Amino acid sequence: MATHETELKWVDGLKFDALQNGKTFRIDGNQEETSSTGLRPKALILSSLAGCTGIDVVDMLKKMHVEFTYFGMKVKGELTEDTPKIYDRVTLTYSIRLSNSDDRAKVERAVHLSQDKYCGVSAMIRKFAVLTVEIQYL
Amino acid sequence: MATHETELKWVDGLKFDALQNGKTFRIDGNQEETSSTGLRPKALILSSLAGCTGIDVVDMLKKMHVEFTYFGMKVKGELTEDTPKIYDRVTLTYSIRLSNSDDRAKVERAVHLSQDKYCGVSAMIRKFAVLTVEIQYL
Repeated sequence: MATHETELKWVDGLKFDALQNGKTFRIDGNQEETSSTGLRPKALILSSLAGCTGIDVVDMLKKMHVEFTYFGMKVKGELTEDTPKIYDRVTLTYSIRLSNSDDRAKVERAVHLSQDKYCGVSAMIRKFAVLTVEIQYL
Repeated sequence: MATHETELKWVDGLKFDALQNGKTFRIDGNQEETSSTGLRPKALILSSLAGCTGIDVVDMLKKMHVEFTYFGMKVKGELTEDTPKIYDRVTLTYSIRLSNSDDRAKVERAVHLSQDKYCGVSAMIRKFAVLTVEIQYL
């Protein structure tokens, strides 16, 4: 059975060092974006989603010999009013600039396969949120 | 309604730059830990959990005037065999070195309040996994 592990160590105030995959990054609970020194923990779930499906899609596009000059994603999570505040609606937008617009069907196939078959983070998020997926061609 | 947003941009290979809270960090889909240049996306969910509840607990301990010289957390996620692979069992261990061992009841109260009331990431994870919580006194 495969397992993943992560560690977090308190530094001072509401600052923590997170260790994952041999890398350290800062998490900061300071609510002021301008004075925060690190990442906000809850939104890491949105970054996790983008990373998981982004890797799937780019990997599949390369195997399909689809050429692109830009690939990006935006994820928006809407929080419930009630505490504990969870994301109950998540919108994921893939943006891609294809070298050949005939490849759009392949992009849609790769996104579909990631969303419905491969991406575990999408599957986890669908257990607590309505996940809407969009593709934008640049 | 409050929303959180995050972005991800493809760099090359399976490398991406993730932007969150004005900070950029690298996500890398390379499966080899030793040659990976960044964080693994799925395990960011485990870091998210540790950060969310760690901030809650440290904030409450400070308000309760509980002194400690170390506070850390470990999170282990067990993956399903089937694809999409999700975490179906998650174990969260808080480790704390208290200045006064009489404060253990306060630590347990803070952990309980975070887990059952405040921490949205714990609430989201419980929608897809069995979450087990432990406290270790150093």
